[in-house]
Amino acid sequence: MGPGTEPSEAPGEASEGTVYLDHNATTPLAPEVARAVQDALCQAWGNPSSSHPAGRKAKELVGSARESLARMVGGRPEDIVFTSGGTEANNMVIHTACRHFQESQAGPGDSRGVPHIVTSSVEHDSIRLPLEQLVKERRAGSPGHCQASCQTAGLVSGLAEATFVPVSPRSGQAEVDDVLAAIQPTTCLVTIMLANNETGVIMPVAELSLRLRALNQQRAAEGMPRVLLHTDAAQMIGKGHVDVQELGVDYLTIVGHKFYGPRIGALYARGPGTTTPLHPLLFGGGQERNFRPGTENTPMIAGLGQAAELVSKNWEAYEAHMRDVRDYLEARLEASFGKQRIHLNSHFTGSKRLCNTSNFSILGPGLQGRRVLACCKRLLASVGAACHSEKGDRPSSILLSCGIPYEVARNALRLSVGRDTTHTDVDLAVQDLVQAVAQLDQDQAL
Amino acid sequence: MGPGTEPSEAPGEASEGTVYLDHNATTPLAPEVARAVQDALCQAWGNPSSSHPAGRKAKELVGSARESLARMVGGRPEDIVFTSGGTEANNMVIHTACRHFQESQAGPGDSRGVPHIVTSSVEHDSIRLPLEQLVKERRAGSPGHCQASCQTAGLVSGLAEATFVPVSPRSGQAEVDDVLAAIQPTTCLVTIMLANNETGVIMPVAELSLRLRALNQQRAAEGMPRVLLHTDAAQMIGKGHVDVQELGVDYLTIVGHKFYGPRIGALYARGPGTTTPLHPLLFGGGQERNFRPGTENTPMIAGLGQAAELVSKNWEAYEAHMRDVRDYLEARLEASFGKQRIHLNSHFTGSKRLCNTSNFSILGPGLQGRRVLACCKRLLASVGAACHSEKGDRPSSILLSCGIPYEVARNALRLSVGRDTTHTDVDLAVQDLVQAVAQLDQDQAL
Repeated sequence: MGPGTEPSEAPGEASEGTVYLDHNATTPLAPEVARAVQDALCQAWGNPSSSHPAGRKAKELVGSARESLARMVGGRPEDIVFTSGGTEANNMVIHTACRHFQESQAGPGDSRGVPHIVTSSVEHDSIRLPLEQLVKERRAGSPGHCQASCQTAGLVSGLAEATFVPVSPRSGQAEVDDVLAAIQPTTCLVTIMLANNETGVIMPVAELSLRLRALNQQRAAEGMPRVLLHTDAAQMIGKGHVDVQELGVDYLTIVGHKFYGPRIGALYARGPGTTTPLHPLLFGGGQERNFRPGTENTPMIAGLGQAAELVSKNWEAYEAHMRDVRDYLEARLEASFGKQRIHLNSHFTGSKRLCNTSNFSILGPGLQGRRVLACCKRLLASVGAACHSEKGDRPSSILLSCGIPYEVARNALRLSVGRDTTHTDVDLAVQDLVQAVAQLDQDQAL
Repeated sequence: MGPGTEPSEAPGEASEGTVYLDHNATTPLAPEVARAVQDALCQAWGNPSSSHPAGRKAKELVGSARESLARMVGGRPEDIVFTSGGTEANNMVIHTACRHFQESQAGPGDSRGVPHIVTSSVEHDSIRLPLEQLVKERRAGSPGHCQASCQTAGLVSGLAEATFVPVSPRSGQAEVDDVLAAIQPTTCLVTIMLANNETGVIMPVAELSLRLRALNQQRAAEGMPRVLLHTDAAQMIGKGHVDVQELGVDYLTIVGHKFYGPRIGALYARGPGTTTPLHPLLFGGGQERNFRPGTENTPMIAGLGQAAELVSKNWEAYEAHMRDVRDYLEARLEASFGKQRIHLNSHFTGSKRLCNTSNFSILGPGLQGRRVLACCKRLLASVGAACHSEKGDRPSSILLSCGIPYEVARNALRLSVGRDTTHTDVDLAVQDLVQAVAQLDQDQAL
């Protein structure tokens, strides 16, 4: 029964009798990760900055985890900066890009204006909201005059403009041509997620980086600022191949709790402070080479390193397993409800998608996603991003962005399978859905 | 042998044969805390934002920890915002104060100038450095014109002025009169630590808040902005009484790993967003009522809650025990080296000090703190703040600020005892120091 089969004390137990298909919201910890966290809690509790043996042991663990993360994404250990999570990593990239734009202005006379950022319409809130905030403040501030000096004065960059490129309803992707077309002379950053958390659609980041490289050469020749490239890989790591060289990105966000690791994260930056700018959001005791001060969360970092090791070793097996189970799920849904009644919201022509995610709607009146889930007895899943769980019955803006009709999007369910999900789990989940829909159909008929 | 007596797997074991007297750098986890972390890792791994039972369980744990923290400091649960640690909490307060100053300016015509912050000369780097950064950028920016609009435009406040009030060499304290004298019409924040990490001197925060309250009434009448009051209680919690009502502060920083809790922290803010302003540093998924988004680190939060419970229940016993052991340490030092050879760097007339901290110098040539510690076989301690451990043989700027002569400060050692430190540990540590000094004296004589 998924993460709940074993009677042991291993992490990953949902309540007995439940089937957890919400791995895109968060995963349980892999048993190896829980052990690494526990070992470090007990044996490496020293302050990594202390020069005595208790500190050195902790410092070694942090260094070793840094190597594991670098290996996982194909970077170098010095390219990894540990953060409190993905939200911080994403905010840090936006801050850095704006700040770099401002600092690279030659002087008060060289006012290129306000930094501009290109992103997609389906990003996580930790990209969308800081950008909206910067734009809002830019518009509230006095435009036009005195910008250069004001901008260089920020602890965090003060203001920006942003373009939210709509995803194509055909592919569910932010199309490379559309992203490139949105770039302006003042653009300092393109940030496009690697895979969408709701639809599972994989974005064409590698192709984008190739095109951007060519564009940056032209821009350099014309004295225009370099466009930095960031991808939030939260949903992709552990479910598919992630290599910063192949992707060609300057920054990549790593989020532990999406790949059976703990609730911290890291930012990959290609040569931070040298090849690629990186500006701290916080100031303090100098940890993480001043990029991210604060006493290191050694146990969580050790756990993150262990989670990365598991991904490096096993990602192909994980991917194959999850794809098999997810495909079985979609086949069972169509068999149980009939092909006409199931709309698969994440099947787009020509797009790859995450191996573990099925976003679908069971068509019919009164079958809003939240109502269906509320009638399920075993299935734990969601209608979209967990951080939107308070938003009631409004359909997901992500699905609407992807061209899913309102009436269909309102009924959407997101089921995301995990490393331990079995065909039996899927059978139970589908039975549960059949029962829930029968009940709601009956209510509707009354 | 302190945290290393038991042969169990309990956290807190230093390597066998060592005596850990560096509890101001970090503490081991209390066994109850390690269990709480482990239980939450295994049983409450759901995303607290998920509406299904796996999420609700995690959400309950977070709520319960929030209550424990509130109880510990005498606040209300809604006054607690979990952060990644003390560095983030301190940075957030500085950001908030500047931002609030800017926003409270009535309009473009009402340019009160640049926000000003008063602090002491002995604060932790996570207060000192963000302030120095703001001041540096303020000076690099163009002064005079266009300030109001620039300041309101920051994601984080853009610029500030700061006064670092020197501590009194008589008391080791930032004196209330000196702090008040530093307040200007543009002052928006006073931030004074509750107890110093190196000397252990306890600062007169409660008296300061009384005087500040009176001053704020006058200021309100004259239309001047309110001066907010923050204290970093990192070193005080678990070692003495900490009550936000008695202290009368608007903000208080809580750091788990200083009181046998995990490596996260929290900020107490009195009625955040209503009575007292609080501006987020990060934008994202809405967690912590938008004050601090990012998926909650449930296991660490659960551990922090457990650590807070222990403090609420036992702080008086902890304090009495540590004071007894620390006093025994100082008596043994004077007995072993002779009163003339030991200079107690943290004995100041009329000042209270932390129950667990002894900062002393063994007088004599060639006895620099770092050299002495390097010759110790069992003792794990430090010469000052852990995050300054790379700074070589320069004496602590904190001690110099407190009027300790250069030659004395250069020999300083900071020994900080813990809940489990015994008289036997102290005997071993002092033996170790006697042996180390004998060896260094001999080297010196050659």
